[in-house]
Amino acid sequence: MLASAPVSRNSALDLPDEDRLDPHPDPAPQPAAARAVVLVGMPGAGKTAIGRRLAARLGLPFRDADTEIESAAGMPITEIFARYGEPHFRDGERRVITRLLAGPPVVLATGGGAFADHATRAAIKQSGAATIWLRCALPTLLRRVAGREHRPMFLNADPVEVLTRLMAARHPLYAEADVTVTCTDESPEATTRRVQDALADAVPPTRLAVGLGERGYDVLVGPGLLGRAGGLVAGLLPSRKVVVITDSAVGPLHLPALRDGLEAAGLSVLTEIAVPPGEGSKDLARLSDVLEAMLLAGLDRRTAVVALGGGVVGDLAGFAAAIAMRGVPFVQVPTTLLAQVDSSVGGKTGVNLKAGKNLAGAFHQPRIVLADTDTLATLPPRELRAGYAEVAKHGLLQGPLWDWCEAHGAAVVAGDTAALTHAVVESCRLKADVVAADEREESAEGGRALLNLGHTFGHAIEAEAGFDGSVLHGEAVAVGLGLAAALSARLGHCSQEWPSRVVAHLADCGLPARLADLPGRFTVDALLGRMAKDKKNRDGTMRFVLMRGAGECFTSADVPRAAVEGLLRDEGAG
Amino acid sequence: MLASAPVSRNSALDLPDEDRLDPHPDPAPQPAAARAVVLVGMPGAGKTAIGRRLAARLGLPFRDADTEIESAAGMPITEIFARYGEPHFRDGERRVITRLLAGPPVVLATGGGAFADHATRAAIKQSGAATIWLRCALPTLLRRVAGREHRPMFLNADPVEVLTRLMAARHPLYAEADVTVTCTDESPEATTRRVQDALADAVPPTRLAVGLGERGYDVLVGPGLLGRAGGLVAGLLPSRKVVVITDSAVGPLHLPALRDGLEAAGLSVLTEIAVPPGEGSKDLARLSDVLEAMLLAGLDRRTAVVALGGGVVGDLAGFAAAIAMRGVPFVQVPTTLLAQVDSSVGGKTGVNLKAGKNLAGAFHQPRIVLADTDTLATLPPRELRAGYAEVAKHGLLQGPLWDWCEAHGAAVVAGDTAALTHAVVESCRLKADVVAADEREESAEGGRALLNLGHTFGHAIEAEAGFDGSVLHGEAVAVGLGLAAALSARLGHCSQEWPSRVVAHLADCGLPARLADLPGRFTVDALLGRMAKDKKNRDGTMRFVLMRGAGECFTSADVPRAAVEGLLRDEGAG
Repeated sequence: MLASAPVSRNSALDLPDEDRLDPHPDPAPQPAAARAVVLVGMPGAGKTAIGRRLAARLGLPFRDADTEIESAAGMPITEIFARYGEPHFRDGERRVITRLLAGPPVVLATGGGAFADHATRAAIKQSGAATIWLRCALPTLLRRVAGREHRPMFLNADPVEVLTRLMAARHPLYAEADVTVTCTDESPEATTRRVQDALADAVPPTRLAVGLGERGYDVLVGPGLLGRAGGLVAGLLPSRKVVVITDSAVGPLHLPALRDGLEAAGLSVLTEIAVPPGEGSKDLARLSDVLEAMLLAGLDRRTAVVALGGGVVGDLAGFAAAIAMRGVPFVQVPTTLLAQVDSSVGGKTGVNLKAGKNLAGAFHQPRIVLADTDTLATLPPRELRAGYAEVAKHGLLQGPLWDWCEAHGAAVVAGDTAALTHAVVESCRLKADVVAADEREESAEGGRALLNLGHTFGHAIEAEAGFDGSVLHGEAVAVGLGLAAALSARLGHCSQEWPSRVVAHLADCGLPARLADLPGRFTVDALLGRMAKDKKNRDGTMRFVLMRGAGECFTSADVPRAAVEGLLRDEGAG
Repeated sequence: MLASAPVSRNSALDLPDEDRLDPHPDPAPQPAAARAVVLVGMPGAGKTAIGRRLAARLGLPFRDADTEIESAAGMPITEIFARYGEPHFRDGERRVITRLLAGPPVVLATGGGAFADHATRAAIKQSGAATIWLRCALPTLLRRVAGREHRPMFLNADPVEVLTRLMAARHPLYAEADVTVTCTDESPEATTRRVQDALADAVPPTRLAVGLGERGYDVLVGPGLLGRAGGLVAGLLPSRKVVVITDSAVGPLHLPALRDGLEAAGLSVLTEIAVPPGEGSKDLARLSDVLEAMLLAGLDRRTAVVALGGGVVGDLAGFAAAIAMRGVPFVQVPTTLLAQVDSSVGGKTGVNLKAGKNLAGAFHQPRIVLADTDTLATLPPRELRAGYAEVAKHGLLQGPLWDWCEAHGAAVVAGDTAALTHAVVESCRLKADVVAADEREESAEGGRALLNLGHTFGHAIEAEAGFDGSVLHGEAVAVGLGLAAALSARLGHCSQEWPSRVVAHLADCGLPARLADLPGRFTVDALLGRMAKDKKNRDGTMRFVLMRGAGECFTSADVPRAAVEGLLRDEGAG
């Protein structure tokens, strides 16, 4: 009977008894969901009652794991517990659940301990099923479990004491479910509708792997990740203690949601440290303050540092995590487009010195990157545009993504959610691949250095402008991309028309794309002087990333200084 | 004829012609050396003339690589060059030299280009032969090569120009020889005597491998390493540029020798940075100064940082190397007993925070550690004794080394060279093994944390004393070792006599071994408070290293606070 489950009502005869007996059949079932749905939560949360109704609404068979276990074992659960003990029961439960989720999609109600068991939780996640936590307050649970004193957990025990203890232990684990629905005393129908809505709204994040072996990690891109942060990170960290580092502009916007999300999974936030926004916070003095504050709050080697903010916060917090007690775990929660498409992935952390940008730092890979696309809605338009410059750079490096940029870049900078999500996902995909192949930027040619496209010019422009906010990093990069295209054309690597196409697209997206588009004047000598000190130079030779076209970029140490000088002069540098 | 070479004059008939024709037979040849001797240097340096005489004195056969090559090829070297080119010649030369060194020991004179060839140089080093560079000034060489215009290198060229160019290219590579003898216009006999003496004096350093895969490196222990530093490190670094970091006490004593040693191998010292001596230099402010100075001097990603000094300099310079441009190569040249037996090996680097010692740092392994035992002669006796505390700790961890300590510890603290060398070698051997097994101190039990023996108490004592020089780190560790033994006895892990034996040995070596031996008063609460904040604690539990006896130490998180409190009180803490 379990061997084949229906994907439409045509095969109703194949349904198991529970489904035919469903007292609340939905009159107009919706099309079957593509994924199984697993309900988790405390005893009394309503997993079976809601699960039956949800299955009917979704047009899926319903299964109750406890019923299946009793049927497989030929005895009640109380007896399995009594005869063989809990570990034996959990093993059987895991086998039954794994079997049920291996077939066509079902709605599955699980026993209260199932999702709290490490291996069973891993098996459920592994199956690809959508998981829903039905979260109930203690009084509601108490009313509902009245009369269940025969259950093994309540034998000879006070239900209040038992439930309180179990909630403390299990809620942090239930929080790892994909969706949380808080249940009240409303009707089961009303709760089921809310569960179905939450399920429909719950866009599963895109998960990209950065393949760095034992230092490998995932980048998650999607909406609503702040509120689920605890469940997403808890399994990756050695303890449930974290410190959060943010800046005083981002904190008020996103810290409450992140804190709730962390605490829902039982993570304890030892302290929240907010630095002033802006590049000025990226120095050794601020780093010192952050380190002292972290340690004062009781950070130990197993405490994770969570960075909530843009590139400055990520670089500073990541570096603090890299060196506090010689390295503690780190989580990136980027909240700007620039940080989501670029700086949060790849493990580069650091601060500025008087001698130049990012000259003190470490490679310290995060345990996970949570790119919550909801946070982009709060970005000022100018910052969104500046972040888009890195997306365009990734397009130029990748090829087909450049065509997509030309078609959809305007939607990205206008804040269109779907376009933004695509831009972040594809940028992270490219970056993850490049980083995995050349983690520490050691490739002789190409590799991670390619990500520097537009940055040799861009860094020089940014430094000359003085980091005072008059020219944002992304704006300098946009001009740098235009200059890199123009330099490539001068050196005969691409067509003479190509630079105009690059500049036109950036301008269409509201970005400066030529030196003349920027405020202030730049001199050839000053810009060349800055470029000569670039960290990527080797033995005094300037290195550029040049292009033959979109998707055909390469590193070169073979650029005559005169060509760069002539270009800058023709572009209006004094 | 080459198949068997004599190890004594009894088999003189087996000698090849060159040896029988030797015009300067030594009347009373010394016993044959255990190793082959290879002479390297410029054309005209006297490799053949000195080599023949040296061979006779050592009772070894003499070989001339060029003669052997001509004989094997059946044509003069000029003709091999003309017909087949230099690469072909170098390949043949390498094969002939490798064959000659594979047999019983000989004295081998090589052509001027042999040791300058990367693969040939590696083959010679690999053979285990002692290498001697006969170093000559240009005028001497010019006089001697007069009349050799038929040699390929001088054909149609000005000898001054040729020799100057070759010396610039080759001297840095010749400097990798084990021994350098500067040759003048004295008689060949006089030079030969000096070569023989230098060879006898040249104690080859003990080389210990720290097995960390791609981060693995060697620890060299022996005399005279500063003066040979360039040759020892050059092959391990990506460029020939270095910055040296030292302190203003060590610099005047050892910087000139190190600088000469580096420059002899063509290394360029971009800058020498001297920090004030003492723990006060290990903070983020000083680190910032050091980083800015390094970058101002032109450091790039391929420039190495060389630390010359004790633990403070090594920790500070190593951390600067770890984070400058996200990591540049690093070389440890420890000049104190403490640094040689402990802090220079293992890659722990860092600075102190207000919150505690070494709380900001990185694991950054050196490319090589040069522990020049000559530098220990300049140490104040109190510092030597303090460093010995770590040797005693290694003895307690290792077992047989503790017996050696009891027999020879007094000689070590009295500055006996042989005893010091043994102490450094065996300490580094133990530490290398422990570090290789647990690089980042992540073992659940044992592992690198064992090196913390005596340090849980020691760090608390040191912190309470205030880092003002009244209690040195090693002195605090010595008291800590006594307390760790006493605690182990209280908990029943070792005999009641064991602590007295530990304390007696440390006292015999002039170290404080009990709290009462230290200046100042310590309170139980203050010491316990410090211990509760130790970096090695996990989830708030204090961790101690305890012992059952020498060589039987273990980590424990299972020490009742009351036992520690009682011990401290009985030891006189208030």
